Amino acid sequence: MAEYILPLERLIEQFRHLPGIGRKTAVRLAFAVLDFSDEEAFAFSDAVRAAKEQVKTCRVCQNIADGELCPICADEERDRSVICVVEDAKAVMSLEKVREYRGVYHVLHGAISPMSGVGPDKLKIPELIARLGSGEVREVIIATNPNVDGEATAMYLTKLIKPLGIKVSRLAYGIPVGGDLDYADEVTLMRALEGRRSM
Amino acid sequence: MAEYILPLERLIEQFRHLPGIGRKTAVRLAFAVLDFSDEEAFAFSDAVRAAKEQVKTCRVCQNIADGELCPICADEERDRSVICVVEDAKAVMSLEKVREYRGVYHVLHGAISPMSGVGPDKLKIPELIARLGSGEVREVIIATNPNVDGEATAMYLTKLIKPLGIKVSRLAYGIPVGGDLDYADEVTLMRALEGRRSM
Repeated sequence: MAEYILPLERLIEQFRHLPGIGRKTAVRLAFAVLDFSDEEAFAFSDAVRAAKEQVKTCRVCQNIADGELCPICADEERDRSVICVVEDAKAVMSLEKVREYRGVYHVLHGAISPMSGVGPDKLKIPELIARLGSGEVREVIIATNPNVDGEATAMYLTKLIKPLGIKVSRLAYGIPVGGDLDYADEVTLMRALEGRRSM
Repeated sequence: MAEYILPLERLIEQFRHLPGIGRKTAVRLAFAVLDFSDEEAFAFSDAVRAAKEQVKTCRVCQNIADGELCPICADEERDRSVICVVEDAKAVMSLEKVREYRGVYHVLHGAISPMSGVGPDKLKIPELIARLGSGEVREVIIATNPNVDGEATAMYLTKLIKPLGIKVSRLAYGIPVGGDLDYADEVTLMRALEGRRSM
């Protein structure tokens, strides 16, 4: 027997499609599913299908949503004069955990990446610009990732939005709280020095 | 928004049921499913359900099977006079990869574990003993895991099978091939010395 029996082999292959799951982990997870009760396995199967079928994109901010609007755009208490621009819905979740930001978001669904052939036309940038036309927005906070692609996207958006007379800001770079200076790379340290604040 | 939208939250919870998957990994995997095409997501969902519905237990050796018999018991070329006893179906797969063993298997579905309250009655031991009654079997190789429970199981089976006049053997302990002596623990080194072979 060179391979596992077919239904198991198929499940192993499916697990391998997930990011960061190699062959060994896929085998382990597939055997774990076999050890599930019928109810558990079917609940898992149904949850995969339901997530794909029921998760939509917010009409306004392109965040994930279970209806027309995401819970943030549907919340009347959020401040629509500030838009925080992120690369993906996961970033929205990370920022929401801080429970500090009261504005709204815009999800680009990626970042400009000349290396991977992703130009601005592949991102939800027209949808962002359309939102700025209402005159309601006074600040756009760019929270793309702190890497080459995120930086390129931030530069591109800044050039596009500033002429509209809207304030554009970028998340601060610096040493992570609770970190150790020894572990910070030089670029981060340089940015932390540049951004130093008087006490 | 304290939590993710419901269908996503449900999928995250489902991924967390899998062994070795914490909250952060579950979130990452759930978002990966959202990035799947419909076809990919439904194929994944269907594979989970199919694995549970179609994977059966071999009538003879208790290995996983897609029919009455597992591929090994169904193979007429396998030597039915040697039975290798393992704790689970994963171990069968590991041993099969060696492509050296030509006998058949018996899957116990666990190991005797007084600490976890697993007695011999919870394992597929009667099914093993029944197979030995035919007079066809001349050797039982015990390949339970090299830990306390696996050892206890090996001892128990040896006492049970030896009186039947059948040879009982155990996989060799020793230093792993390609390993470094510095990394071997003392018990393994002791076993490697005990089992030394003349050159």
